[in-house]
Amino acid sequence: MEDIEIVQQNTPEPIEKIANKIGLTADQIEPYGHDKAKLSMAALQRLQQNPAGKLVLVTSINPTPAGEGKSTVTVGLADALQQRGQHPVIALREPSLGPVMGMKGGATGGGYAQVMPMADINLHFTGDMHALTAANNTLAALIDNHIHQGNTLNIDPKRIVWKRALDINDRALRETVIGLGKPANGEMREEGFDITVASEMMAVLCLATDLEDLKKRLGNILIAYTFDRQPIFVRDLQVQGALTVLLKDAIKPNLVQTLEHTPTIIHGGPFANIAHGCNSILATEAAIHAGNYALTEAGFGADLGAEKFLDIVTPHLSKAPDVIVVVATVRALKYNGGQKLADLSTEDIHALENGYVNLHRHLQNMQRYDIPVVVSINRFVSDSDKELAVLQDLISQEGLTSAITDVHEQGGKGGLALADLVIEAATEEVPDYQRLYDDDSSIIEKLTTIAQEIYGAKDVEFTSKAKQQLRLIERHGWDKMPICVAKTQYSFSDQPKLLGAPTGFTLTVRDLIPKLGAGFIVAMAGNVLTMPGLPKHPAAEKIDIDGQGRITGLF
Amino acid sequence: MEDIEIVQQNTPEPIEKIANKIGLTADQIEPYGHDKAKLSMAALQRLQQNPAGKLVLVTSINPTPAGEGKSTVTVGLADALQQRGQHPVIALREPSLGPVMGMKGGATGGGYAQVMPMADINLHFTGDMHALTAANNTLAALIDNHIHQGNTLNIDPKRIVWKRALDINDRALRETVIGLGKPANGEMREEGFDITVASEMMAVLCLATDLEDLKKRLGNILIAYTFDRQPIFVRDLQVQGALTVLLKDAIKPNLVQTLEHTPTIIHGGPFANIAHGCNSILATEAAIHAGNYALTEAGFGADLGAEKFLDIVTPHLSKAPDVIVVVATVRALKYNGGQKLADLSTEDIHALENGYVNLHRHLQNMQRYDIPVVVSINRFVSDSDKELAVLQDLISQEGLTSAITDVHEQGGKGGLALADLVIEAATEEVPDYQRLYDDDSSIIEKLTTIAQEIYGAKDVEFTSKAKQQLRLIERHGWDKMPICVAKTQYSFSDQPKLLGAPTGFTLTVRDLIPKLGAGFIVAMAGNVLTMPGLPKHPAAEKIDIDGQGRITGLF
Repeated sequence: MEDIEIVQQNTPEPIEKIANKIGLTADQIEPYGHDKAKLSMAALQRLQQNPAGKLVLVTSINPTPAGEGKSTVTVGLADALQQRGQHPVIALREPSLGPVMGMKGGATGGGYAQVMPMADINLHFTGDMHALTAANNTLAALIDNHIHQGNTLNIDPKRIVWKRALDINDRALRETVIGLGKPANGEMREEGFDITVASEMMAVLCLATDLEDLKKRLGNILIAYTFDRQPIFVRDLQVQGALTVLLKDAIKPNLVQTLEHTPTIIHGGPFANIAHGCNSILATEAAIHAGNYALTEAGFGADLGAEKFLDIVTPHLSKAPDVIVVVATVRALKYNGGQKLADLSTEDIHALENGYVNLHRHLQNMQRYDIPVVVSINRFVSDSDKELAVLQDLISQEGLTSAITDVHEQGGKGGLALADLVIEAATEEVPDYQRLYDDDSSIIEKLTTIAQEIYGAKDVEFTSKAKQQLRLIERHGWDKMPICVAKTQYSFSDQPKLLGAPTGFTLTVRDLIPKLGAGFIVAMAGNVLTMPGLPKHPAAEKIDIDGQGRITGLF
Repeated sequence: MEDIEIVQQNTPEPIEKIANKIGLTADQIEPYGHDKAKLSMAALQRLQQNPAGKLVLVTSINPTPAGEGKSTVTVGLADALQQRGQHPVIALREPSLGPVMGMKGGATGGGYAQVMPMADINLHFTGDMHALTAANNTLAALIDNHIHQGNTLNIDPKRIVWKRALDINDRALRETVIGLGKPANGEMREEGFDITVASEMMAVLCLATDLEDLKKRLGNILIAYTFDRQPIFVRDLQVQGALTVLLKDAIKPNLVQTLEHTPTIIHGGPFANIAHGCNSILATEAAIHAGNYALTEAGFGADLGAEKFLDIVTPHLSKAPDVIVVVATVRALKYNGGQKLADLSTEDIHALENGYVNLHRHLQNMQRYDIPVVVSINRFVSDSDKELAVLQDLISQEGLTSAITDVHEQGGKGGLALADLVIEAATEEVPDYQRLYDDDSSIIEKLTTIAQEIYGAKDVEFTSKAKQQLRLIERHGWDKMPICVAKTQYSFSDQPKLLGAPTGFTLTVRDLIPKLGAGFIVAMAGNVLTMPGLPKHPAAEKIDIDGQGRITGLF
């Protein structure tokens, strides 16, 4: 059965009822239809008065074409916790429309562990992504127009660092020339479009703590350099107020529910390979204070999303995670161990043992932060009992516990064993959360720490462009910020085909991009596309709707 | 006082209460916050069972920098009708974000004749504009990707007619080159961006009558020609279903209210100079059946918006207008009569009499459709009693009635005299509505009729490009559709500086663009920009918001 069919067979509770579940009244939420709502700023303040619950971070091994089901586990685990009489609240990222129309599909879980209304969330939802796109491109238009109208700020058109953005997979917009034609069309220059989820606008929204902070961050965004190489910020254009107005609703987290009516806050959606990969601070904070278990997910493998959650996001939160859940599957580990995609349904203990190194390193990495770690083995029909037993045995040899989950087929019931492990781990006395690096270290030190300690790299190399950027960043004193590495999600390294747990490689940093509104430095490692393309047969060809509004082909 | 301050001093009724006013229950609307809602498709069907009320079309003389206040009159007239015990429902267009951040400001009326919530409506509202942008650009990406992935449809990249779009004033995107760089970035080609309100996507949404019709129209959109010059439609890409899914909510009209709580349906927003300039068919139909007076407005002067409403839109409606209200101001007529902008506050009877020719021709044009016409003189503080008396006298010499309105300062009370005239005119036996031309006539005949009968042109000339397009359109049999002229809004002619009521000019048609999804042929006359630019000091510089969410500088 298609995911959307399962959702269509379930009736959501009125969203007011879900709000009641977390102690909010109908006037503290702003409904969008009958099954979606935004939490008002007053609601966020109200929630903040509650005591903090336990925070659970869900992450995973490196993604493979076999699929891991991290969102599915997050949803199913929350439903299981609810079945155990707890009061879980989920915080998730918003899906990007680009991949929905392209290949990846949505981001609302799968099977019987899904968030509703699945179609709306995967499409325009409450408009946050579009508001970000509008703010991003309004700023871009204002920059080009400033130059056209006399350029009193002396901006060098060849040194504009702000790019346009669309929430679409559009390879043709990666490299463009704009401002062609008549003089009235402005200055001709090279320009590129990123996907909105890779934009700094998205990172700023996710890291902002209120409207004032949002406006300040927007004002701090670096947009260009002058002909004499002085930095120009949004505040120099005096449009941070207008951009904040464009994001006044987008800053409010969105409330929905799982198939089992667990309150779910979905807000902000940066990709974890080219951005920081976590939902908004406001959503996580709301979840922490809205129930006794907050579950949040970080994008892609623990080398990307979780590292960024722990080193970039956590310092802004009222608390660090109490438990980290690492999702693994037999299939994905066997793929890491050399088994071919087409053969993954065949038992192969050798490949499993070989591929286990991937999980092993992620587990070691997560333990480095001094937070309890448990493993969720997301069961697939093709997994043999022996494979599952071998995997659990390998994990227990590390002194860690694991549970086999089957939330895709069973919903919360399939996650009860995992829920019990999480409850047990969360009641442990939590040692101090240890961050991986200090912001005050040099960029080279911070990058080397991430590369060696998390990725297993031998060393880090900078291209001449990256070196040039490094000098510029240091000269301006922007180097005391966390690092957000942009690299392939498929490998610990910067080379997508190096599966398992590679060592001895050099991480090559091609560029360093100061994101002064977000407050981090992006390090581009390897060839990471900030604008995806569509596949030969895009999902759009299969998506349809009938006269009664019934959607098919959305997944 | 700023318009937004007036709105901030008024408390909207809960949107459910406004829905009740038009006979809808809370579950027949989809709330967006507490003061906005979408009408569900079920609600539209429910309303359609009511008898039709009177339909009032509000239009105006050619716009001038002096401002006419057509939306303000529409809102104030509705509020006045409500004060007279009638049950008016307004249907308006959605504002475009581009001009809001640029120069023109919003489109929700002004002073005490406004629609609430003004800021939301002028910003992202319920996301319709962004959904259209997403659908527009998803289609564009699918086209370029199709070519990149093997081009089985044999599309000639130099003959793609579908353009990208953004709801932003962005001069730099008028002419671009895309697909630069690596082979994976697709085919390099010229491309342009239009403002979303000028896109065929917008026209299709506004003319669609239900989901099935929307899907059919989307499938019919002409996107390109093959290397051997055969037309390629959206249906050839098989993505009309996905595009319809992207517009599944955007097709539902939006319900809001005036400051005096008159139900107002705002939906669809094509510009009237470069598109057809009227809100959606679904919104107008809903308004017709939701009360006993439906008021709708057509964009810019009656030469553009009203002509298109009467010749393109009305054939799709269940009824033609019962009354046409033409809005004029002393100031705008004096400007048409040669008085300088800076001097408009000085009495000048001569300029008024000179400029009256503009109103005169609009009144003649509207009467040609055999629908009763009344004039609203939108009073400004600087108007002298003598000027007002002279203007009323000139109008009565044509056998028409006029009322002086002051809804900007007084709300509905300032429109009572106009309301009485409208009620009187609407009770007249309405003669048959006479359309200006038959769709079966040739394109040259239809264009000549519009140019001579409405614009006062001597004749119509086609550039060689337009002639080439004419042959192509005729060869494919696409010529039996209405004509949507794109021309300057400032003059009856295609030359912005020819004010008053010019005669003897030639209308030059530069291009003919078949919009097969919308179902009309756009005739480009003069240099009409389909992507506006920002001014030297964009409104964005003045717009701000404080920590409590209070907005300033939005107008």
